[in-house]
Amino acid sequence: MTLETRLADIARTLRQETERGTVAQYIPELGAVDPEQFGIAVSDAAGNTVAAGDADTPFSIQSISKVFTLSLALLRHGDALWTRVGQEPSGNAFNSIVQLEAERGIPRNPLINAGAIVIADTLLGPGGPGETLRTIQAFTARAAGLPTIPIDTRVAASEARTGARNRSLAQFMAAEKTLHHPVETVLEAYFGHCALAMSCRTLARAGRYLAFDGASDGAALIPGDTARQIGALMLTCGHYDGSGAFACRVGLPGKSGVGGGILALVPGVASVAVWSPGLGPKGNSLLGMRALSMLAADEGWSVFSGLPVDRG
Amino acid sequence: MTLETRLADIARTLRQETERGTVAQYIPELGAVDPEQFGIAVSDAAGNTVAAGDADTPFSIQSISKVFTLSLALLRHGDALWTRVGQEPSGNAFNSIVQLEAERGIPRNPLINAGAIVIADTLLGPGGPGETLRTIQAFTARAAGLPTIPIDTRVAASEARTGARNRSLAQFMAAEKTLHHPVETVLEAYFGHCALAMSCRTLARAGRYLAFDGASDGAALIPGDTARQIGALMLTCGHYDGSGAFACRVGLPGKSGVGGGILALVPGVASVAVWSPGLGPKGNSLLGMRALSMLAADEGWSVFSGLPVDRG
Amino acid sequence: MTLETRLADIARTLRQETERGTVAQYIPELGAVDPEQFGIAVSDAAGNTVAAGDADTPFSIQSISKVFTLSLALLRHGDALWTRVGQEPSGNAFNSIVQLEAERGIPRNPLINAGAIVIADTLLGPGGPGETLRTIQAFTARAAGLPTIPIDTRVAASEARTGARNRSLAQFMAAEKTLHHPVETVLEAYFGHCALAMSCRTLARAGRYLAFDGASDGAALIPGDTARQIGALMLTCGHYDGSGAFACRVGLPGKSGVGGGILALVPGVASVAVWSPGLGPKGNSLLGMRALSMLAADEGWSVFSGLPVDRG
Amino acid sequence: MTLETRLADIARTLRQETERGTVAQYIPELGAVDPEQFGIAVSDAAGNTVAAGDADTPFSIQSISKVFTLSLALLRHGDALWTRVGQEPSGNAFNSIVQLEAERGIPRNPLINAGAIVIADTLLGPGGPGETLRTIQAFTARAAGLPTIPIDTRVAASEARTGARNRSLAQFMAAEKTLHHPVETVLEAYFGHCALAMSCRTLARAGRYLAFDGASDGAALIPGDTARQIGALMLTCGHYDGSGAFACRVGLPGKSGVGGGILALVPGVASVAVWSPGLGPKGNSLLGMRALSMLAADEGWSVFSGLPVDRG
Repeated sequence: MTLETRLADIARTLRQETERGTVAQYIPELGAVDPEQFGIAVSDAAGNTVAAGDADTPFSIQSISKVFTLSLALLRHGDALWTRVGQEPSGNAFNSIVQLEAERGIPRNPLINAGAIVIADTLLGPGGPGETLRTIQAFTARAAGLPTIPIDTRVAASEARTGARNRSLAQFMAAEKTLHHPVETVLEAYFGHCALAMSCRTLARAGRYLAFDGASDGAALIPGDTARQIGALMLTCGHYDGSGAFACRVGLPGKSGVGGGILALVPGVASVAVWSPGLGPKGNSLLGMRALSMLAADEGWSVFSGLPVDRG
Repeated sequence: MTLETRLADIARTLRQETERGTVAQYIPELGAVDPEQFGIAVSDAAGNTVAAGDADTPFSIQSISKVFTLSLALLRHGDALWTRVGQEPSGNAFNSIVQLEAERGIPRNPLINAGAIVIADTLLGPGGPGETLRTIQAFTARAAGLPTIPIDTRVAASEARTGARNRSLAQFMAAEKTLHHPVETVLEAYFGHCALAMSCRTLARAGRYLAFDGASDGAALIPGDTARQIGALMLTCGHYDGSGAFACRVGLPGKSGVGGGILALVPGVASVAVWSPGLGPKGNSLLGMRALSMLAADEGWSVFSGLPVDRG
Repeated sequence: MTLETRLADIARTLRQETERGTVAQYIPELGAVDPEQFGIAVSDAAGNTVAAGDADTPFSIQSISKVFTLSLALLRHGDALWTRVGQEPSGNAFNSIVQLEAERGIPRNPLINAGAIVIADTLLGPGGPGETLRTIQAFTARAAGLPTIPIDTRVAASEARTGARNRSLAQFMAAEKTLHHPVETVLEAYFGHCALAMSCRTLARAGRYLAFDGASDGAALIPGDTARQIGALMLTCGHYDGSGAFACRVGLPGKSGVGGGILALVPGVASVAVWSPGLGPKGNSLLGMRALSMLAADEGWSVFSGLPVDRG
Repeated sequence: MTLETRLADIARTLRQETERGTVAQYIPELGAVDPEQFGIAVSDAAGNTVAAGDADTPFSIQSISKVFTLSLALLRHGDALWTRVGQEPSGNAFNSIVQLEAERGIPRNPLINAGAIVIADTLLGPGGPGETLRTIQAFTARAAGLPTIPIDTRVAASEARTGARNRSLAQFMAAEKTLHHPVETVLEAYFGHCALAMSCRTLARAGRYLAFDGASDGAALIPGDTARQIGALMLTCGHYDGSGAFACRVGLPGKSGVGGGILALVPGVASVAVWSPGLGPKGNSLLGMRALSMLAADEGWSVFSGLPVDRG
């Protein structure tokens, strides 16, 4: 069966699914998204992309943006970054604050909210949040091979108005002096990059460098060992307190966002983006995870297998 | 450079290292082990094994045995096992009890002590701990292609006398009714399998089926998807609250034991065992982790890379 | 209205109450107690006792015994005791273990289970648990002005068989070296003193010294400042994570037991014992607390008021 | 010995003490206070006040203000208040956030920071923080029998600029919808009332109604049972995770503030205010607690004793 047929099959199967999870309500602007949508796209190193469903509809990538900001922060700060944020799964929900209290404001990893807020802090410069956001947009656009990636300013504004929990995390870290810029400045950058809007097709292309040792379209966006490190963090921490289940079921590094998107990596083979707005209990796209699980099984894609799995 | 030369190089380099960590003291019998020892062995699918250092000295594999008992438990109970133990990183130390209280006696994953005690419980039958231990020995012997794997009964007895923390975990789960057999019966099986004694050479051979989709010497010991699931748990949970750092630095699924051993998997390529008794702050072999980091970098082994890494 | 009439009134009112809470099930022998029973007794310094309801039926005083063992431990060890157990409310349930992990096996206070297990440990001597229990029996008998106080050995045996949660606490402290005797030895003493059987009348008389600065029947059982210290711990910690609510509603130092008893102190005025087997959600006698709340309001008894409250 | 002589003795003894604790640094304006200062004042029901040391120097009462705002909130909302805040000791530090996460934004009690922020929220009306602060000032002035009690606006502004930890608590509760007004509005009221400036003499007089069943200068400021409830909360929660030790050592309801003040109650007898800016490890005035311990022992004041203690 060709990959094209498989993706179409998966899209068709999941379109009929009635258990679609719950669309995130805590950012009002996201709460209005139609839960019936589903898209999937697979891109190879050259950017050739196969897709199905609503693969060209832009959605808010939300926390998936954390892999792009982490890439930039590691480019800028190298291993010194790990003095400001950890590399371990937190064992807690995406927006948990309890670990911060015991560990004096150092977040467990850069893929939970607190950690990504620190990453945003490390990317700020004299040009303020605007410049930081333009840098992030330029980087993701280059990764996707596109002229630009837009930020949905209504989503950013919606979260800025309602993001009390993230403000609480940021204020806590400000109290512990683990943020170096004013809380609202950091959050403007953070809410902004979470509101990057991409389609599955764009996201799959943008994520290629993470699946191909840092390189995209022949150019090294980040060093290979940095790409592998990000892959390791995606696998261990990319789905919050559902990361282990994702690793067991899908077997690939992945990063989810509350907009319903997931970016998954098949190292050396492909970059995969999937989108379905309904979330499961751990805040990860319910059908997105199912789609990836089906696709990985069918294609024999697993970082825990040396061989394409024969399901003859 | 041949693999043989590389391993010899690594063994030579690490033999001169003076920062060797601390030998585990909490099991008296293990506290007496000479911290200067170091061994490493790499086995391919056929069982061809290259080794260096003290690769033929048996050591107590301790928690590495959890991957073998997990294999047996998944063989026996299938996915029903996941109602009794979780699949998520705990975010806590190997012997932490706090998560058990919040989560009503269901351990986070089968590779922390509480989880492995539940696994031991699921492997008990009418024959008692003795039969369970014989089954485990037979399974690991078959995996290693050897007639038998011994249990160091002095180590088992030493831990049985001093294992108050593990008794606390087991009693807690007994109170929550998540153990089905008497605490001391379960612990006899648990302390017994932790005391399996293997050399690096034996362990590397025994671990092959986990690196090769469940098969060893041409026979399927466990189904391929079960092997991949265990690999996923090793990567996310195999080094307790140091799992993320191991994934970032080494890039391979691994499982450590307080005896100083680590089993690491290069899916489709090799199974690696390393041993150095001194432990780092998270309870994982300090030089073992360094050796694996050096070897993986040199060989371009990483599950997060599709390509053997070219280091010019 | 005389005190006699008041107690009879309270007993009559509460006998008709249908919401009686839940009899503790986790010690099988206690689970069989008839929840319809209710007793209350008030004793003055001289031991004159007024009572109503089932005030002469013996019940298992359970955790109320912790105030007697604490008295003995402070007599024996003085303030040095506070190096082994804290003086602070735990914020957690009576049998919680989480605080022990963060605080290296030092229980928050002597009135939660972990703390009382440490107290039992401090009371052990060469004569073993038997001698310790005889000392406790002699002390409580003397306090009550009776020849002896029995231990219900069926209750002690029932808890010894089923007390996995307390075993977990004790094993945890053994692992942290905060117990000095073998776990089962300590628990034999602990389960034994929890099984002391007293009626309300006996308990009210036995508790007098705590309400009267350490003295009973003219003799100082413990120093006055020790008695006041125990009163302080009863008020802050005597009802586990329901201590604050008890202090707010009743306004007196009190200690509850899962057998449904409560001992409350009206310093300088009286010692009160109440018993109703049904427990509320925090493990404290539901009607016992209501009875004390009614009685304290009626009599104007509150340590937070300098004046008998005039209720016109 | 007269009370006057006693207070002078205590002031003289403590003036020579070199271990004075650490002045709170986290509010810059407070960090500049001279740690050598010490004052004490005792007021009877009629407002007759005996004092020693720097008893007429105004200081920032900080968290002591929580007993006054709690009084007003209970006057306004009655027992309905307890649906928004608990009555239990938290077992954690004054500014801890961990309990809020497990308990969905409902603070454990009104005397920790999170709880007092909720109380401030309940006191807001159409007139905003300014009106709320004027109401609080009027209430405390009336309690003290003075025309007015000033707010130190530099201290309030200093904390408003630097109070990231309290902002984190408030934002967390906003996210959980347990605050009904905007975070900065609530914090303006909170920071404002914490900056009330009183001398020991004024504070002792202002606290009388809490020691005398709600009445001051013949007028009932709050109902007697409300006063007793506040006394109960002061005793169980008034010194954060040092409340148990304070109850054991001093034996009186008390409330501390990071400005170094403590208000203690001798129900039916006196209201006591003490001030020494240096704090101990739990954030309570080090010498303030020692002074109260000496005074209570000398005078035989303890709510756990029915008799003035004879120290012959």
